[in-house]
Parts: sequence; structure tokens; C-alpha cells
Amino acid sequence: MTASASPWTLARRAARMNPSVIREILKLTEQPGIVSLAGGLPAAETFPVEAMREAAQRVLRDAPREALQYAASEGYGPLREWVASHLATQGLAVDASQVLITTGSQQGLDLVGKALIDAGSAVAVESPTYLGALQAFAPFEPELAAIDCDAHGPLPAALQGARGARFLYVLPNFQNPSGRCIPAERRDALVAAARTAGVPLVEDNPYGDLWFDAPPPASLASRWPEGTVYLGSFSKVLAPGLRLGYVVAPARIFPKLLQAKQAADLHTPGFNQRMVHEVVKGAFLDTHVPRIRARYRAHRDAMQAALAQHFAPLGATWQAPGGGMFFWVELPPRLDATALLARAVERGVAFVPGAAFYAHAPRANTLRLSFVTVEPEAIERGIATLAGVVAEARP
Amino acid sequence: MTASASPWTLARRAARMNPSVIREILKLTEQPGIVSLAGGLPAAETFPVEAMREAAQRVLRDAPREALQYAASEGYGPLREWVASHLATQGLAVDASQVLITTGSQQGLDLVGKALIDAGSAVAVESPTYLGALQAFAPFEPELAAIDCDAHGPLPAALQGARGARFLYVLPNFQNPSGRCIPAERRDALVAAARTAGVPLVEDNPYGDLWFDAPPPASLASRWPEGTVYLGSFSKVLAPGLRLGYVVAPARIFPKLLQAKQAADLHTPGFNQRMVHEVVKGAFLDTHVPRIRARYRAHRDAMQAALAQHFAPLGATWQAPGGGMFFWVELPPRLDATALLARAVERGVAFVPGAAFYAHAPRANTLRLSFVTVEPEAIERGIATLAGVVAEARP
Repeated sequence: MTASASPWTLARRAARMNPSVIREILKLTEQPGIVSLAGGLPAAETFPVEAMREAAQRVLRDAPREALQYAASEGYGPLREWVASHLATQGLAVDASQVLITTGSQQGLDLVGKALIDAGSAVAVESPTYLGALQAFAPFEPELAAIDCDAHGPLPAALQGARGARFLYVLPNFQNPSGRCIPAERRDALVAAARTAGVPLVEDNPYGDLWFDAPPPASLASRWPEGTVYLGSFSKVLAPGLRLGYVVAPARIFPKLLQAKQAADLHTPGFNQRMVHEVVKGAFLDTHVPRIRARYRAHRDAMQAALAQHFAPLGATWQAPGGGMFFWVELPPRLDATALLARAVERGVAFVPGAAFYAHAPRANTLRLSFVTVEPEAIERGIATLAGVVAEARP
Repeated sequence: MTASASPWTLARRAARMNPSVIREILKLTEQPGIVSLAGGLPAAETFPVEAMREAAQRVLRDAPREALQYAASEGYGPLREWVASHLATQGLAVDASQVLITTGSQQGLDLVGKALIDAGSAVAVESPTYLGALQAFAPFEPELAAIDCDAHGPLPAALQGARGARFLYVLPNFQNPSGRCIPAERRDALVAAARTAGVPLVEDNPYGDLWFDAPPPASLASRWPEGTVYLGSFSKVLAPGLRLGYVVAPARIFPKLLQAKQAADLHTPGFNQRMVHEVVKGAFLDTHVPRIRARYRAHRDAMQAALAQHFAPLGATWQAPGGGMFFWVELPPRLDATALLARAVERGVAFVPGAAFYAHAPRANTLRLSFVTVEPEAIERGIATLAGVVAEARP
């Protein structure tokens, strides 16, 4: 080789790894004054700063050396116990020994991919689905099978075509990006179809606690415990900057997820685990989460009203979400949301084009709108502006 | 399928993933009263608890929402800048844009594996080498090539046989497990051989600041910037429980490491990054690190004296390390350290058998002794007891 040639050879999987479209858009929209409906961030006003401050003090007063030392890969015992008892209140009976604390639930997706996906394995996903999951799975080179969905979620009959898939990845509660919540009957039918097809489930539930009208039906995991890996997160009910989530896994695969975790980062920061345990161990969430719900509900209502006023006349359609953070809008056919983005940003509004959320056959006329970080009057203004951009682009 | 069959199929790589031998041993040695020379933990007495407490308060007072919100995958800008300027003081000129903050430097190893190793790729490692690196690389299914080493590190001539390897993983400063520090001339020769063979380097440096007698020579990265990925850590100079490390990478591969990072956990906890930046941004380490050095040096001296008294008469050999946390002891041939461990634990002393640190052809008569978490008088007692166990086992 010549002195100037690069000595590096990238792994084949690196070709599948790409920057997040959303993160690139977010960089563009950090200009002051822009109304960003593009974010996937929770509202920082909801972060329990005072509780965090007290928790940090208590941990560094009562157990500083333990909190700052290396710790068990499984996670902090009392937090694992708390997760198990919290899930029990939602009808999901698990033992603390099945709970693996992760560095955000994004890491849970990485560990699942590492333990379960071979190059060329089929992996079934909803259509559309969470972009971050597509990114987490991509390095393991799956063949993605997009399962047809309707307003109630994945079509059980479509699972026949996914026989042999390593798993179906599904986000049943107020899905990112579509906002939809799978009704109880569809959950039953989906689990029955998955059992028949021999396709286990990876159930991702970051938004389940953020319901506005009624709690979501019981989890898929509670309907098929030995066939479901369940992912949870503290990012939406407390704060994402501590990077704290968890995986609940059946005994058949827990040890491999644990070994993958150990290889990935040894353990999730013990200080953060103890802080969060200090915050949640009492009844704090019982008053805190309803406050987040009330705030987000008011924002949801503001966006619903603005869409009804400005988007309905354009022939756009959407479903008001019963929880979570997002509206999913379908523009009239032949409109391309990606093509509209630059114009919208010029006018001071940002959103995420829906195409990025499809494993295959993106629907170009879709877009995702977040309603949680922008105040209601700015939501109204942003939606009105965006409607103007759409109106100009109509054929 | 029958109702009772498991629907799960593990990825092929899962067969390569195994629990850490060391972590399993550590579980056995958590009984009170045992003298554990097995740990890889820093001494908790060195953790700067008061500085951490103040830093946590300042971050939660001055930038609580930023610290608790989602953040950039690259890491917190001021911390990246600090890393770059810190490395400059050690003769390594890097731009902050080359610094990727990771969730402990263990994550750096995972990201390197993900971006650079295909199934069947050759990866060259020292012999012995850091067990955690073997674990991090294993899921990507490399063919490991063990490079012959002497007391000065890897033999440059041995790199000829590693042509085509994706990289050589090397821990030049007070290596875990061997304690050895590669001298400057050997570094030059190693880099020259690596350039000639076209084998880039992954340089891991968790212990470089913990020198007792003289600072280690300049890094391999400073000798071959475009051919070296450099990994650093805050675990040994501050505290490991915050899980904070960094990777410095050439422009050719930085974007792929960043994308792998984004997929793995989105970003390292922003709160932890800001806390550590608060602690290190002034001159804190200038007084703190010398205190750790002085403490560990005294422990090193105690273990050296105990080994000279109790182990030299047994025909065991070792080199006193010039820094870091470990002695590496060779027992007389035909003794098997793994076979001695159970007896040693019965007598109240634990250590790590050396076999776990070899990619191939483990040398059964080696063992690793940590000197940093045990007080000098317990080191003397532990080494004396261990010598008794060895003496009984001699053929």
C-alpha cells in the first residue's frame, strides 16, 4: 500500500448505517423563532427538576461510593424490583429477575437486534414504524418485512406472510409516528396470529403512561409472556437525558440480552439508576404523570382544532391520538411531504416527512407532527402556516 | 409448532456471547472478610464525592432542562473541547470534532467492533489482552489473531502475520491484565510495522494517567493519527459509575462510529457529561490525580514487597508495574491458577486466573492481582495466604 492510502476497512454492515433523517432536520430547525413540530422530544417544562435535585443529593449523601463504583450489568436491584411492581399495576406479572436496566430503551432495541438478528433474518415491522428501531436493527442486516396496518394496528392475517421472522416489532400504545393505539380485540387477534405463525413479539412501550382519554389496553406481553420481549422507558415520564429504560425478557433469552448488555457498556450508570429510584420509589409518579397528561392533552386538543380548521379543507386526513406525542397526517395523494419541507422551514415551521418511517414503499404524502413542545398558540400559528404551504403545492 | 415450543431463535453470534468469567468470580468473592485481589475496580476512596455533589447541584441549577433533555449523539460540546485540549497536553493533537463521547470506554469497543468487524474478519490482539475487549468484539464474530508479546509489548515482526487484519487492539499503558507499559522505541517500531502491514490500530488508554514513576511515552495515536482510533475514560481518574468515556477517530471512520452510537443508545446521558465537565473544567484533576497516584503507588509497593517475600521463593516471576492497577504473576510451569482458585477462596483470598485473558492458547500458570482496593496490610496477608496455597500445590 502507499503511504497515503487509508488502512481502514469498514464492516459490510456500515453501509446500512446512516445518519438519522430526523436528527438532521432537527439541526436545521434550531434557529430561534421557528415553530418546530418536528421534534420527538418531551416538553422540558415537565421535567421534575426539584425532585431530581433532591434525589441527586440523597444518593451522593447516602451511597456515594456505591453510586459511583462499577455495578451489576443487570441493573440496580431496587429499581428492577420497582419496575416489576410497576408493571404488575398494569396487569403485567414479571419477576424482577426478568428486568434488565438499559441505557435508554434505544439500547434495548440494540441488544434485541444483537441477540436475535442474523444477516438476512426476516424481521417484521409495522408500517409505518419507529425510525430509531429501524436504525437499531440495521447494523444486524435483517430483511425487513413491513406488515400491513390499518387504523387499529397490524393486520393479524398479514402475520401469515411473516412466518419464520425472528420477531414482530410493535409499538401498541400511541405509536411513534402514527399515534395509533391498538384496541384490546386487535391485541388478542394479533397475539393469536403471532402464536400460530410462531413469530415472537418485541413490544416497545415508551408512551403508554401518556394517555389522555383512557388507559391503553393491557400489554401484548401480558397476553403472551413467554413470547414477548417488553421495552419500557423513563424518558417520557421523567426525563430522557438520564438515558434510562428497561427490557423485560422471558428466561429463554434473558441471559443473552444480559451478556450483550455487559459487552455493550458493562452497565447503565449506577448514579442515574439510584437517582431515578429515589424519585419513583414513593408516590411521586401518581401526581407527576397526570400533570404531564393534562398538559399534553391540552396541546393535543389545540392541534386537533387547528388541523380541523386549516387542514380539513385541504382534503388532508388524520386521527386524533388518544395519547403520546404525535399526529400523523395524510395529505391528498400526489403531494410529497419531503418536497414541502424546505418551503415550510423558510416560512418558519418544521415537521418530519413520513417517508422516513417506512421500511419499504414509503407513502410520500404523510407527515408527523409533534404537539408537546410547542405552546398551543404557536401550534395554531404553525398549522396555519403549514396549511398555506400545502395549499400552494396542490396540483 | 406446539403450544409449548419456544418461538425464539437466537442469532448465530449469541453462541459467542458468554458471561464474564471475572464478574462470575466477583460474585463469589463478595463475602465479607475475603481479601479480594480479583477486582478490576478503582478504589472507591478516591472518588471525588464532594466535587460530584457540587457539580450535580450546579448542573441542576444552571441548565436543568438541557441536562435532562435529549442531546446530540456526538456528546456535550464543552466536554468534547475539554477532551481535545486535555489530549493536547499529552502530545496528541486532535480536533474536538473527532471526539465522540461514549457510555464508558467499553461502549467505544462495541462501536469499533460494529463499524469495523465482519464475521470472519481477522482482528489482532495482544497476548494476553483485556477480557472486556474480547467480549465486546465477540458478537461481531472476528477471527482473533494473538500477537506474540514480550515484556515490552507486541513484537513488531509479529504484525507481518496479521496483514489483512481489520485492526490491532492494543493497550499500551499499564495494560490490563499484564501491567506492562510499552517503551517509546517499541511504540515507534510497532507503528512502523503496522503501517507497513496496513493494519490500523485501536489504542485503549484507561490507565495512562495512573503512572507512579514516570509518565508513559506519547500515544500510538500521536505517532499515526490517521491510522489510530484512540479510546479514553473517566472511570479511573474520577469514577466508573457515571459511565463516561470517549473515542477519538480519524475522519475516515468517525461518521460510522457516530451512526453506530446513535443506533446504540442515542447519546450518553447529558446530565453525566455536564457533571463531569463541571468537575474537570478547572484545575481539579491537577491535584486529584496525583493523590490517586500516590495512594496506588503505596499499594503497588506493598504488593511488590509481599510478592518478593512470599512468591519469589516459590519460583514465581512478575514485573512491578509502573502504573495502573495490576500485577501479572507467572507461577512455575505446570501449576494451573484456575485449579488453585477454589482453594484460595476457601482460605479467604481471591484473584483472577490469567487464562481468561488469552484469545488463544491460554497460559494456565498466570494470574492477575489487583492492588488498588485492598489496604496494604491486607495485601501482605492475602499474598502470604495465596503463597501458601501455591506452595501446597507445587508438584
